[in-house]
Amino acid sequence: MTLHGRLNNLSATAKAKVHKIDIKQHSTDIVQEEVAVEAPANIYINKKHLVTLLSSPSMLNELAVGHLFSEGMLKTKDSIDELLIAGTDIHVKLKTGAKVDFDLNRFGRFVSSACGSLVDYLRLLAQINSKITDQYSVTAENLEQMVTKLNNESIVFKMTGGIHSAAIFENLKMVAFAEDVGRHNAVDKALGASILKNIDLHRSVLVTSGRQTADIVAKAAQMAIPISVSISGPIHSGIKLAERVGITLICFARGKRFNIYTCPERVKLS
Amino acid sequence: MTLHGRLNNLSATAKAKVHKIDIKQHSTDIVQEEVAVEAPANIYINKKHLVTLLSSPSMLNELAVGHLFSEGMLKTKDSIDELLIAGTDIHVKLKTGAKVDFDLNRFGRFVSSACGSLVDYLRLLAQINSKITDQYSVTAENLEQMVTKLNNESIVFKMTGGIHSAAIFENLKMVAFAEDVGRHNAVDKALGASILKNIDLHRSVLVTSGRQTADIVAKAAQMAIPISVSISGPIHSGIKLAERVGITLICFARGKRFNIYTCPERVKLS
Repeated sequence: MTLHGRLNNLSATAKAKVHKIDIKQHSTDIVQEEVAVEAPANIYINKKHLVTLLSSPSMLNELAVGHLFSEGMLKTKDSIDELLIAGTDIHVKLKTGAKVDFDLNRFGRFVSSACGSLVDYLRLLAQINSKITDQYSVTAENLEQMVTKLNNESIVFKMTGGIHSAAIFENLKMVAFAEDVGRHNAVDKALGASILKNIDLHRSVLVTSGRQTADIVAKAAQMAIPISVSISGPIHSGIKLAERVGITLICFARGKRFNIYTCPERVKLS
Repeated sequence: MTLHGRLNNLSATAKAKVHKIDIKQHSTDIVQEEVAVEAPANIYINKKHLVTLLSSPSMLNELAVGHLFSEGMLKTKDSIDELLIAGTDIHVKLKTGAKVDFDLNRFGRFVSSACGSLVDYLRLLAQINSKITDQYSVTAENLEQMVTKLNNESIVFKMTGGIHSAAIFENLKMVAFAEDVGRHNAVDKALGASILKNIDLHRSVLVTSGRQTADIVAKAAQMAIPISVSISGPIHSGIKLAERVGITLICFARGKRFNIYTCPERVKLS
C-alpha cells in the first residue's frame, strides 16, 4: 500500500474571540481561545463517493481505513493499493479484484444532497440566509437561571447520564423542554413543541446541553431565535455561522461563568 | 391540524444490570439501573420517506414538526393536515397544495440503506454476527490507568472542550490515539491507526470518551475487540449488542469507580 497527498491548510482547532463573563466578579474579559474545527471528510472508493463524515481534519487516512474496516466493508489491508489525500478528500484505490460493499455503510451520519466537498458544505451553510436583527436582550442572571432550570428539568439525564436536553424560554419563561439521545433531536423536539404552541421564537432563548455545531446554529437561525446558550462548547463552524446570521452564541454556561462568542450586545451584565 | 396515533410500547429508558466496581472500597455491587434507549424514528411526508433519526422514542410529533421547520423544509403549521404516529413512524399529511422540499434535508444524520423501521434497524444490528470468545482479561487498576492515559493525551479536548478522544491499548500499552469532533470518527481513526500498524486487536482494549451506542459497539465487534471502555454512559442498544456479541462493556469509567454492563468476567478486581 502506498500513501500519498496532504491535507489542505486545515487544523483541528482555530482561534475565536471570546467574551468571558463572570457574574460573581461582575467582569467581562475579552480573550482569544482555541475552538474545535469540523470539516466534511469525503471517502471515495475507486473514485466513487462512499460517505461524507463531518470530522476534525486530521488523521484522514486512519479515518478512512478505520471506517471501512469497522463498518465491515473491508477485511484486509492487502485489498488497498493506494491511499491518496487531496484536501479533505480521501481516495482509496483498491487492488484488482478487491471490492467494497457500499450497502454495508449502515450508519452513515452525514450525507448531504450535495455530497460533499468543503466547498459544497460551505455553500450549504451559505444558503442559510436568515439575518437576525432583533434587539431582544437578557441579563447574565437571566441566563444563569435558564441553565439552572434546564438542569433541574433534565430528569432522564439524571437517571441515565446518556442524554441531551433542550429548552425554549419565551420572555424568560420556559415554554418547551425535551430530552433525547441526540442533541439535534432534543433541539428539534423543543422547537416542534414551541411551534405547536404558537410561541414567538423571535423573542426566545434556546438553551441546550449539546455542542454548538453549524447544523445546530442553523436550526436556531432558521427559526429566527436571537440567543442560543449551551452548557457544552462551541465548534468553529457554529461560531462562524452565528456571526454571519447575527445570533448571540453563548457556550460553557456553567454556574456563574459563561463565554459569549458572537453578538455580545444582547447580554446585559446586570 | 389533527393529531393521531400512539407510540409503540417504548420508553425513553430501560433497566440494565450493572456491576458497580469501586477500586478504593475493593467492592462489586450488582444493581439494576436505568439507561437511555434509542430507536429509529422515521419521518414520512405524504407516505414518502424523508429521513430516519436515531432518537429517544418520545415527543415524536414534536420531533417531526421541529425537524421540518428547523431544516427549512416547512414554513407554516397551516401546511400540515394531519400528524399520525404509528409505532416510531411519524406520518405527516400535508394540505392540498402544500409542499416539502426534500433536498433541504441538508444534514441527515442517519440514513440506512434499509431506510428505516425499528425492525429494519434491529435486522441491521442482527447482521453483526461476530461472537467474541477471547478470554483476554485486565485488572480494574489497568482500566483506571488506561482512562487516565486517555485523559492525559486529550490535548485538543483540553484546549477546546469540544472534542472526543479514543485510544487502543494492546497488552496494556497505548498503541493508537485520536481526537475528533465526532465520537464515531475518533473510534474510526484509532482503529485505522491500529490496522495500519498491524496491532493485534483481539487482545486490545478500546477506550473512548463518547457514549456507547449500538453503532459504536458494532465497530468494536467488527474488529473483534473484547473490551470497550468509556468515560461516558451506555445506551440500551449498545448494551444489548455487547451482550449478544460477547464484548465487555464498561462505562462511566471515572477515577476509581466504573460500571460493567456485560461480560464482567474479563475484569479482575485485582
